[in-house]
Amino acid sequence: MFSPTEPTRGGGAPRRGPHPLGPRGPRPGGMRHSRPRPPRRGSVRVEHSSPAPRRENAKVPPISTDTVRIIPLGGVEEIGRNMTAVEVGDDIYVLDCGFQFKEDDTPGIDYILPNTGYLEQNRHKVRGMLISHGHLDHIGGIPYILDRIGNPMIYTRRLTGMMIKKRQEEFVGSSPIQIREVEKGETIKLGNHTVRFFGVTHTVPDSMGIIIETPWGDVVFTGDIKLNHTDGTPSEEEQREFAIFKDRNVLALLMDSTNVWQPGFSIPEVNVYTTLQRIITETNGRLIIAMFASHLERLIRVMQFAEENAKKVVIDGRSMRTNIEIARELGLIKYKDDTVIQVEDIDRFPPEKVVILATGAQGDEFASLARIGNKSHKYLRLKPTDTIVLSSSVIPGNERAVQKLKDNLSRQGARIITYHASDVHASGHGNREEAVWIHKQVRPKFFVPVHGYHYMLRVHGDVAEELGMPRANIIIPDNSAVVEIVNGEKIGVHPVKAPNELRVVEGHTVSELSDVLMRDRKALGQEGFCVVVATVDRRTGKLHKSPDIISRGFVYLRDNKDLMDQTRLIVRKSVETAMRNPRAADLDSARDDLAEDVARFLLLKTQKRPIVIPVIVSI
Amino acid sequence: MFSPTEPTRGGGAPRRGPHPLGPRGPRPGGMRHSRPRPPRRGSVRVEHSSPAPRRENAKVPPISTDTVRIIPLGGVEEIGRNMTAVEVGDDIYVLDCGFQFKEDDTPGIDYILPNTGYLEQNRHKVRGMLISHGHLDHIGGIPYILDRIGNPMIYTRRLTGMMIKKRQEEFVGSSPIQIREVEKGETIKLGNHTVRFFGVTHTVPDSMGIIIETPWGDVVFTGDIKLNHTDGTPSEEEQREFAIFKDRNVLALLMDSTNVWQPGFSIPEVNVYTTLQRIITETNGRLIIAMFASHLERLIRVMQFAEENAKKVVIDGRSMRTNIEIARELGLIKYKDDTVIQVEDIDRFPPEKVVILATGAQGDEFASLARIGNKSHKYLRLKPTDTIVLSSSVIPGNERAVQKLKDNLSRQGARIITYHASDVHASGHGNREEAVWIHKQVRPKFFVPVHGYHYMLRVHGDVAEELGMPRANIIIPDNSAVVEIVNGEKIGVHPVKAPNELRVVEGHTVSELSDVLMRDRKALGQEGFCVVVATVDRRTGKLHKSPDIISRGFVYLRDNKDLMDQTRLIVRKSVETAMRNPRAADLDSARDDLAEDVARFLLLKTQKRPIVIPVIVSI
Repeated sequence: MFSPTEPTRGGGAPRRGPHPLGPRGPRPGGMRHSRPRPPRRGSVRVEHSSPAPRRENAKVPPISTDTVRIIPLGGVEEIGRNMTAVEVGDDIYVLDCGFQFKEDDTPGIDYILPNTGYLEQNRHKVRGMLISHGHLDHIGGIPYILDRIGNPMIYTRRLTGMMIKKRQEEFVGSSPIQIREVEKGETIKLGNHTVRFFGVTHTVPDSMGIIIETPWGDVVFTGDIKLNHTDGTPSEEEQREFAIFKDRNVLALLMDSTNVWQPGFSIPEVNVYTTLQRIITETNGRLIIAMFASHLERLIRVMQFAEENAKKVVIDGRSMRTNIEIARELGLIKYKDDTVIQVEDIDRFPPEKVVILATGAQGDEFASLARIGNKSHKYLRLKPTDTIVLSSSVIPGNERAVQKLKDNLSRQGARIITYHASDVHASGHGNREEAVWIHKQVRPKFFVPVHGYHYMLRVHGDVAEELGMPRANIIIPDNSAVVEIVNGEKIGVHPVKAPNELRVVEGHTVSELSDVLMRDRKALGQEGFCVVVATVDRRTGKLHKSPDIISRGFVYLRDNKDLMDQTRLIVRKSVETAMRNPRAADLDSARDDLAEDVARFLLLKTQKRPIVIPVIVSI
Repeated sequence: MFSPTEPTRGGGAPRRGPHPLGPRGPRPGGMRHSRPRPPRRGSVRVEHSSPAPRRENAKVPPISTDTVRIIPLGGVEEIGRNMTAVEVGDDIYVLDCGFQFKEDDTPGIDYILPNTGYLEQNRHKVRGMLISHGHLDHIGGIPYILDRIGNPMIYTRRLTGMMIKKRQEEFVGSSPIQIREVEKGETIKLGNHTVRFFGVTHTVPDSMGIIIETPWGDVVFTGDIKLNHTDGTPSEEEQREFAIFKDRNVLALLMDSTNVWQPGFSIPEVNVYTTLQRIITETNGRLIIAMFASHLERLIRVMQFAEENAKKVVIDGRSMRTNIEIARELGLIKYKDDTVIQVEDIDRFPPEKVVILATGAQGDEFASLARIGNKSHKYLRLKPTDTIVLSSSVIPGNERAVQKLKDNLSRQGARIITYHASDVHASGHGNREEAVWIHKQVRPKFFVPVHGYHYMLRVHGDVAEELGMPRANIIIPDNSAVVEIVNGEKIGVHPVKAPNELRVVEGHTVSELSDVLMRDRKALGQEGFCVVVATVDRRTGKLHKSPDIISRGFVYLRDNKDLMDQTRLIVRKSVETAMRNPRAADLDSARDDLAEDVARFLLLKTQKRPIVIPVIVSI
């Protein structure tokens, strides 16, 4: 929000108008109390968005020696921005560091970050950042957060480490990161405690769970997890990985809750492979398979099936190409150099010998598939003989974009295969019965569900209770709740929360979310604004000439003359009434009156509430 | 869009700024060419939103005597605003008159209407409006459209007629409507043709299909339809209703396509009744059932189950109360007066003896359930012993609102039952195999799928083809496509479309949708705006004082002083450069330069593109 920094100089000039006819924010003067903060570093600045100085929350006191703290900093009231701190003695372990893509109610924001205020206050205790896998809701926050919490060492498996490094390259000027590669089954000493890792099934290779050994037993974190089951029996590998818990004393389990509200077992990913293999083998025309670039396991399989069928592969999407290259570099995937062809060479091969891997199955406006759909792709034009596989479900909020995409694609005659009619997609998160199996292996004393909306966590809590855990041993946390296990005997939530204001990334800037800003954007996006300019003669108190009216996003009127003329009259009357005694007149209150009078009139006439900006120039 | 109507008078005053650094709309001067149109009537005005005079489209020529025209005016590129015209000889029959709720890409709009330009041009031929059932996507347009097409008589069944009348009462000053009640099985003569009706299954009583007899066979319109089947066998009533087609010659079928992309059969509504009956009988605490007020059949059953279990019913939601009252008035439902209690009396009854029927299962912000969820309901507070049934699916686009609702409800400890884990909801639209059965009964020569997005229609077309219909006999129409069947032998689409600009309702106003307005709102909702005010001395060409900057919705900066000061410098430099020869200076181009200079600077500094409004006051 801009505003004249020296209000007195702006005496005869416009300033921010009031919020007429509705609670749209604090009085305009409020923000002048705000104190500027120095920029933080390079291209990423920290700004504080609150118009008034934020009331300091009570600070969480230091941890007791008999206590284990578990603090979910994000990811327990939403899908995304997963990050949890585990504190014991002098050590803090940071589990994952994700971000969340913007929500409907944060217009104009790019990402939402976990609030790491607690870690910043205790950065001397942070012993390491442990990353479960390489998806953005688990690593996306790293470039924005790492140096704020003292640039701790990152511990993760090889592929995840590569993905973190590749991403860091996009952030010019950010501090160098240090990654120490670990493997499942490995044990490391970190601070005063031992940390172990175990392998879990998700949609990206090298996913792992993390075990922190405390004097009262293990704190076990699964990361994102599903089971690669056959009719409900987990794979041998999974049975082997979870066998370690037979001899372990688990104090607390922190586990992914995303799909636990879904009954039964999820579709195993292997079914998707079978379906895709069949489609690749049997399709006689050109085949386009759209999926997330982050579904790396599936990408690897599709490459393999294509090669087995002597088909060429076009990889159309930067993130997809990057991920496949990383996987090849690490030996996770092998293919001949000439299996992958450039998109511009596609017409040199018969259509039935080509598989196109495309991004954009979620309807993303600029992704490969959207450009194919709206015919703006440089090289690819659809033919009625093409088959398109949407190998993904629809993320909540993307339904209309995906519908539009399907309309655009089917309009060109292509056949579309979706997960509704065929097993071309499976979630990376396990259903209820998979959670049941995992709980039975881990046998924790206490349970803190993470990763999901509150309702999902609560359903997960109910599952634990049905499995025999006392209700008192289960905590459904909010973001920044300080969960404490005392003496290994009792779990509870500290009355003081860790800092929990929403932190957001917008353009170059990291800042705390401003409610006023969000409210203004929502109002502007629905109702628009209207600037009224009155030039007033300071001696006579009369308008110098007819007032001017400028609007954008407000009702677009062709027959506007009546309303325009009437609004001008309202402006004139309002200002001249306020200026009746020009020498005594207070321009600020004249502006407030003007905004209110105009807003009330426009609401009456149009049922719209544009933001009205009153400009009074006194000459 | 407001703008000075006499540009010369506004010489030294602000006007609309250009759209710097991006294609955000036409040059500001453009809209001055627009000609005002007179207001239409009472509170509903017709305004034309295009900034430049609209290029007149070619007009659809009159129909030939050998032709049947089918013109979907809405509902074939979206869910909602269903309306189709059937024209034969001198007669036009209007099938349904719905509206669509706003989309993400029409911010600030209340509803989208079908474009009835074709009917307005041919209003002398409109013989009647035939309404299949009483849902808003089939009747919502009536108050906005009826008198524009000559106030034709409405033909529909009793309940639908009552719902239309009730709704009309909310529109003060609109023309009185005439309704002629018809029944399934009934035959009427309308213009030169016979029209028949048959009963269909949907989620509201008195749903019907419509048959228009033409010299070449019947045009059959199903309206919204599913089957009340048992393991794939339709009910006796449905078999009876569709038996009429055994002896009929069906020229063309127009049929609901909403769920035909779903494989198999839909869950029959009777399963939902069984589940709800069990829940009502077995629940030992207070029970809240949330559903659409439009699911009248289900509401009726719940009332009945509650009474059978000697439970009292609170009806919490105006639309629900209205619909139940209409149904009772018509004898569709019978219950004792004391079965329904007022919400304020709820605590006079034991919790296990109370069922609350609530609106808001879609997360609607102001509906009953949302107020219960966020604890703003005047009388209802949740208890951990409450059970809440969400007897509805989630309409695409509402996922996050519903998630928030579930979070709020579960936070208070109540148990939530959703359609994921239990048959507490079924769609009102049939799946693929239901469509197959209906096609086999009707045996049309030509097929025009309606009601749904293009992809859904296309899948429905594929179904018809798989059933043996030649591809050439199937037309997948766009809105306002003029589908013609010539001599009963050949179907095609006329090269000229009926008028098809988007018509929208916003506040009091019906107008054509302005792309510029939508683009501005989207930009404002993400980036905000910034007004810069420079007062310039017309003799010296120098700024009179430091420029002022006002913004809303733009990045909210606490440490703004640097950026503010730098922006002021940019303003001063830009204006003083433009005014170097003040006598020759062109204020319009000075404003354009100012907007562009400021926008470029702000983009560079913040990566945001606020709409910049330049105000130069010359004194």
